[in-house]
Amino acid sequence: MKAISLLGSTGSIGTQSLDVIRQHPKEFRIVGLACNNKLEIIEGQINEFRPEVVSVADNETAEKLKEKISGKTEVVFGERGLETAATIESADTVVGALVGFLGLKPTIQAIRAGKNIALANKETLVAGGSIVMKEVRDKGVVLTPIDSEHCALFQCLNGEKIGQVAKLIITCSGGPFKFKKTEELRNVTVEQALGHPTWKMGKKITIDSSTLMNKGLEIIEAHWLYGMPYEKIEAIMHPQSIVHSMVEFVDGSVIGQIGTHDMRTPIQYALSYPDRIPNDFPKMDFIKTQKLEFFPLDEETFECLAYAKEAGNIGGTMPTAMNAANEEAVYAFLDKKIGFLDIARVVRKSMDCHKTVSRLSLEEIIEADRKAREGARKEIAGMRK
Amino acid sequence: MKAISLLGSTGSIGTQSLDVIRQHPKEFRIVGLACNNKLEIIEGQINEFRPEVVSVADNETAEKLKEKISGKTEVVFGERGLETAATIESADTVVGALVGFLGLKPTIQAIRAGKNIALANKETLVAGGSIVMKEVRDKGVVLTPIDSEHCALFQCLNGEKIGQVAKLIITCSGGPFKFKKTEELRNVTVEQALGHPTWKMGKKITIDSSTLMNKGLEIIEAHWLYGMPYEKIEAIMHPQSIVHSMVEFVDGSVIGQIGTHDMRTPIQYALSYPDRIPNDFPKMDFIKTQKLEFFPLDEETFECLAYAKEAGNIGGTMPTAMNAANEEAVYAFLDKKIGFLDIARVVRKSMDCHKTVSRLSLEEIIEADRKAREGARKEIAGMRK
Repeated sequence: MKAISLLGSTGSIGTQSLDVIRQHPKEFRIVGLACNNKLEIIEGQINEFRPEVVSVADNETAEKLKEKISGKTEVVFGERGLETAATIESADTVVGALVGFLGLKPTIQAIRAGKNIALANKETLVAGGSIVMKEVRDKGVVLTPIDSEHCALFQCLNGEKIGQVAKLIITCSGGPFKFKKTEELRNVTVEQALGHPTWKMGKKITIDSSTLMNKGLEIIEAHWLYGMPYEKIEAIMHPQSIVHSMVEFVDGSVIGQIGTHDMRTPIQYALSYPDRIPNDFPKMDFIKTQKLEFFPLDEETFECLAYAKEAGNIGGTMPTAMNAANEEAVYAFLDKKIGFLDIARVVRKSMDCHKTVSRLSLEEIIEADRKAREGARKEIAGMRK
Repeated sequence: MKAISLLGSTGSIGTQSLDVIRQHPKEFRIVGLACNNKLEIIEGQINEFRPEVVSVADNETAEKLKEKISGKTEVVFGERGLETAATIESADTVVGALVGFLGLKPTIQAIRAGKNIALANKETLVAGGSIVMKEVRDKGVVLTPIDSEHCALFQCLNGEKIGQVAKLIITCSGGPFKFKKTEELRNVTVEQALGHPTWKMGKKITIDSSTLMNKGLEIIEAHWLYGMPYEKIEAIMHPQSIVHSMVEFVDGSVIGQIGTHDMRTPIQYALSYPDRIPNDFPKMDFIKTQKLEFFPLDEETFECLAYAKEAGNIGGTMPTAMNAANEEAVYAFLDKKIGFLDIARVVRKSMDCHKTVSRLSLEEIIEADRKAREGARKEIAGMRK
C-alpha cells in the first residue's frame, strides 16, 4: 500500500486524486493533505481520509479548522506547513497538484526527502525543470507526470529506449477558440475562454488552454521530463482529445496513448506505476468515437504557444519569467482587468524585459519569478480597462 | 550483426525483408534463402546477398539454378532443403515468410535448432499455435510477429504486464467489400477481391482480407502469441489502416501503434527487436492523415470471421482443419473454380465434418490438415462451375 501526501487537495486534480484513492483503499492511503482555505471541503476530506497532517494557507484558517475537527490530525499552515506536508515521514509518494509557481518549492522539498512524485503541477517543471530533474536523478526517486499528455508520453515510452525516439507528438484539443483568427478573439469573455470543449479542469489551466499557452508549457515540461531537445517535440491539434499524445521512434513506428477525457485515469496511473490497476471509470468505445482528426496549430494567432517555445529554446530563467508573466496575466484576465489578447502581450513584454540567467539555483529561479511578476503587474496596471 | 535465414524469399514479405536487410548492411546479413521456383528472382537474390544455402522447391529447379550461379552457395531442395535452410548453423534468426500451412514444420525445426523467429506466416500459429509456442518457451527463443497487427500489439505490450491487459483490439481495414451485404457479394470477381484498399500483399492474404478470414486468423494468432483468452480479443474496422492495433489495459488506458502502410516497418522491427533502427521509409504525417475512423465488423455478412473465432474457441485441431479448408477454398477461388461466397461454405462444411482432437502433436496436426484438405477438395469439386 502506498502512503500519499496530496498537495492541492481541494482543486480539480486534488479532488479527482482523492476519488482514485477512495476507489482503491487497498492500494493507497492518505497521510497528508495540503490546500488553501476551502474550510468545508478540507473538513470533509479530513473526516474521510484521516490524514496525519493537514496544511492550510494561513494561521487563521488553521485555527478555524482546528475547532471543526476531532481526531489526531495535526494542522499546520503557510510555507512551513506546506513543507511539513511535502516531507511527512510516512509518505512514500507526494502528489503535486498545486497550481502555478508555488508548487516548485514543496516539490523540491519532497524530492530531497526521498519521496516519489506524481506531478500535475506543470509550472514546477516550466519554471525549474533543470533543478527538479537533477534532484530526481540525485535522489533516485520516480517522477510520474499526471498531465494527460505527459502521462501518455510516459506510457508510450514504456519498455523503449529514449535514444531511439525520433520525436514526441503532444496533442492539443485546440481549446474553445480553435480555427479562430486574432480579429475574432479581440472581445472574448472570461466565460467563453472557460468553456473548454473536451476537458473539465481548473480555471488557470482552462485559460492556458484557450490561449494555447498550456501547450507551450507542456512542450517545456516534456523537454525536462524526457530530456528531449525542443526540435524533437511537436504539438498537433486533435480536437477529439482521444489520442492523448504519441511518440514517433527512429524506425517510423508511432506509439500513441488513447483514452477517455477522464483525468482520473492518468492520476491513477501516476500513483499505481509501474502497475496498472482496475477501476470503474468509463472505458473507451471506439465504435462510438468513430472519428479522430489532426490539424496543424496556428502559432500566429495563438502567440503564447510561440512565446513559450521561444522561452524554452532560450532556456535559463527565461521560461521562469515567461511563466510568471503568464500566471499574472491569466489571473488579471480572470479578474476582468485585461482583455484576452492582452495575455500574450504581457508575456511578450516580460520576456523582452527579462535578462536570462543560465546557471540556475532555486534562489535564482525564485528571484526571476518575483521580478517577472513585478514587471507583469506593472504592465497589467498600465493596461487596465 | 544478425545472421538471417529467410524462408519465402521471393514472395511479398520475402522481397520486402530483403529490402530492409539491403538498407541495413551493418545490422543484418543473409545466410540462407528458401523459395519455390522463381528462378530469375532467386538468382538475383543469390548474386546480391551471397547466402551459404539456398533451398528451392524441387530437384529440377535446383539443377537449373546450379547452372546459373557461381560462388559458394549450396543449393538444396524439397522438404529436406527447407529444413536445411531453417536450421543452418550460422543463422541466429529465421524469417518465416512462407505462405500457408507449409510454414509450420520448418518453423518448428528452426525453433528446435535454437533460432529466433520473425514470423509472417500466420497459418503456422493458426494451425499449430500450441506446439509452436511450447517449443518457443522450451527453447527460450524470441518469436517476433511480422504481421502488422501483431507487431503493433507486440509494441503496445512493451514494458507492460500481460496480466494487466483488459483486451487486445485488432484493427481491420474492412477489405475491398466493407459495408457490403451478402447479396452484393454473390458475383464478386477474383480481380475485385484482389483490390485491397490499403495494403499491397500476396494473393492468399489479400483474398483472406476480402472475406475477413484474415482477421479471424489474426485473432487465433494473437491468442497464441500473447496467451490471451478469446473473450479478451476484439476486432474492429478501421478503414484507414493507420492504427495497426491497440491494447486496452485494466485501468482503461489504451496503447495503440500507428504507422504508414509499409510492411517494411514491422519487418524491420521484428528483425531489429529489442532495438529500433533508423530507415528511409516514408513517415507518418498526421496533418495529411487527418481522419481516423472506427466501425463494427459485420460477422453475418463475412461469415469466415465468425467461423475462425468459433474454431479458435473450440481449439484442438479445429483451427487446423478450418485453416486447411480455407487455404484450399481460396486457391480454388483464385483459380475461378468456385465463387466468392463458396469460400465460407467450404470452411463451414469442413468444420462441420471435422472431429476435433485436443491433445496435439505435430503429427496429429499434419494429419488434421491433410484430412481437412481432402474433404475441402471434394466439396470444391462438387461446387465446380
